[in-house]
Amino acid sequence: MKDQFITYIKSLQNNITQSLEKEDGTATFREDSWKRPAGGGGKTRVIENGGVFEKGGVNVSEVFGTLPESMQQQLGVKHSDFFACGISLVIHPKSPMVPTVHANFRYFELYDKNKAVVDQWFGGGLDLTPYYVFDEDAIHFHQVCKSVCDAHHPDFYTKYKKQCDEYFWNHHRNESRGIGGLFFDYCRPTENITVEAWYDFITQMGDAFIEAYLPIVQKRKALSYSEEQRQWQEIRRGRYVEFNLVHDKGTLFGLKTNGRIESILMSLPPHVQWVYDMHPEDGSEEEKLVTLLQQPKTWV
Amino acid sequence: MKDQFITYIKSLQNNITQSLEKEDGTATFREDSWKRPAGGGGKTRVIENGGVFEKGGVNVSEVFGTLPESMQQQLGVKHSDFFACGISLVIHPKSPMVPTVHANFRYFELYDKNKAVVDQWFGGGLDLTPYYVFDEDAIHFHQVCKSVCDAHHPDFYTKYKKQCDEYFWNHHRNESRGIGGLFFDYCRPTENITVEAWYDFITQMGDAFIEAYLPIVQKRKALSYSEEQRQWQEIRRGRYVEFNLVHDKGTLFGLKTNGRIESILMSLPPHVQWVYDMHPEDGSEEEKLVTLLQQPKTWV
Repeated sequence: MKDQFITYIKSLQNNITQSLEKEDGTATFREDSWKRPAGGGGKTRVIENGGVFEKGGVNVSEVFGTLPESMQQQLGVKHSDFFACGISLVIHPKSPMVPTVHANFRYFELYDKNKAVVDQWFGGGLDLTPYYVFDEDAIHFHQVCKSVCDAHHPDFYTKYKKQCDEYFWNHHRNESRGIGGLFFDYCRPTENITVEAWYDFITQMGDAFIEAYLPIVQKRKALSYSEEQRQWQEIRRGRYVEFNLVHDKGTLFGLKTNGRIESILMSLPPHVQWVYDMHPEDGSEEEKLVTLLQQPKTWV
Repeated sequence: MKDQFITYIKSLQNNITQSLEKEDGTATFREDSWKRPAGGGGKTRVIENGGVFEKGGVNVSEVFGTLPESMQQQLGVKHSDFFACGISLVIHPKSPMVPTVHANFRYFELYDKNKAVVDQWFGGGLDLTPYYVFDEDAIHFHQVCKSVCDAHHPDFYTKYKKQCDEYFWNHHRNESRGIGGLFFDYCRPTENITVEAWYDFITQMGDAFIEAYLPIVQKRKALSYSEEQRQWQEIRRGRYVEFNLVHDKGTLFGLKTNGRIESILMSLPPHVQWVYDMHPEDGSEEEKLVTLLQQPKTWV
């Protein structure tokens, strides 16, 4: 399963970066191969200052070694020998009319002292962070998520949509990071679902990423926008930074397991602003976003 | 002591904001009075888009109530009824030639069930974060710190300078946030030092803040700088954000005790950049800073 999933995420990285480069039309991804001193490594691909994408990273990694005590506690596991691999991406478009997107698909194994697999699970998801709200974009994104879910289990979409809303809650701001999507974790083989069935689910979700995101980019990238709207985007990107550095477990996992810092923090937006106590005007499009993020919404 | 120190920090807030406004010449501080639902409140003063200061906040607060279990553990205390007051400031100048500065002076009390004071301590410090290195500025800043320390105890400067270097270590980057200053905490009355002596020490430190910082502003604010130097400042400000959101215990304390978010996060810089895997050129002034931050330096 390990090897099968590694092959998949490498191929997905190629597909996604090729599609995004084609859409961008100007910039290409640069690739950095890196090794993790404690075991493993990865390939980080980053695009910067493109025609459409201001900054984006698509990273694959395989890491292994010994989990620190704190990470064992956080994961609720008692074995410390681990292997983890995954693909992780965050795309920050230049235009405030095009949403930021994040996706991650990962696989985890734990071993006993004889190096036998004692635990294994998949995790991941995808979610959208708009700066201006276009209902039809949110509906499209969620519809693609739901279609993949429904092909596997009637409860998946409802369950994983809810988990996404919960996970990407920016607690100290009491608002959602964005308009959600899916979040799933600890997808372990059971009597009802084999590890192969989980593999099918997660890889079909990975395959659907471009279908979920690219049509939104294509529809919004040519819209004009003002300097004020760009400012708003940079201010809202500040909330993205706050979430990733204060609450995100993936970032924490990377920092605690001596991950490659530049690959972990490639998710941070290129230009960001913090303005003291900024509140959008009543009735504005900016206020519409803030109101929307106060509580999860049913999109499909 | 509580009332005495509250009176002091309010007066210090006035003195510091007046001095900074005079130096800025263009912008003034706006003040927000706020109440904390769980007990207490404060006055936050913020200056934005000034002639010299791009963003700065000087906040005083008095908060009281019940410490969450996690905060009791972090502070290593067994009583949950607390009172805390302090002044906290962060100033982000517009010019990359002028360093960012942070200072904080605070007082803490814990109570038993009969509301008797069972523990009390002062804490605080001040530290400088330059974007370009001027040795004489760092020496001046440290010299002022040392003079105040030396008037109280021959060991204070060495001890609190070291604690500052340790505290403001940006672990995940393996570098210092800036060129340090002083950091002290849990300054409790003992056989040798009364609480009044601690009060004298910390208030003299507070009084010396303007003397430590303002001459540096005056010396550097009129220097010209390029667009590239401004970019460098914004990129380095990203490290400031990373430290404050990932490692800073003061920020954590505020977030965990339901502090006023805008007052806690007023420390975040106005314009910030994250550029993937950015390394300054060999032999450049930017590289000089990065090299300097690799390990603590003895300035005086």
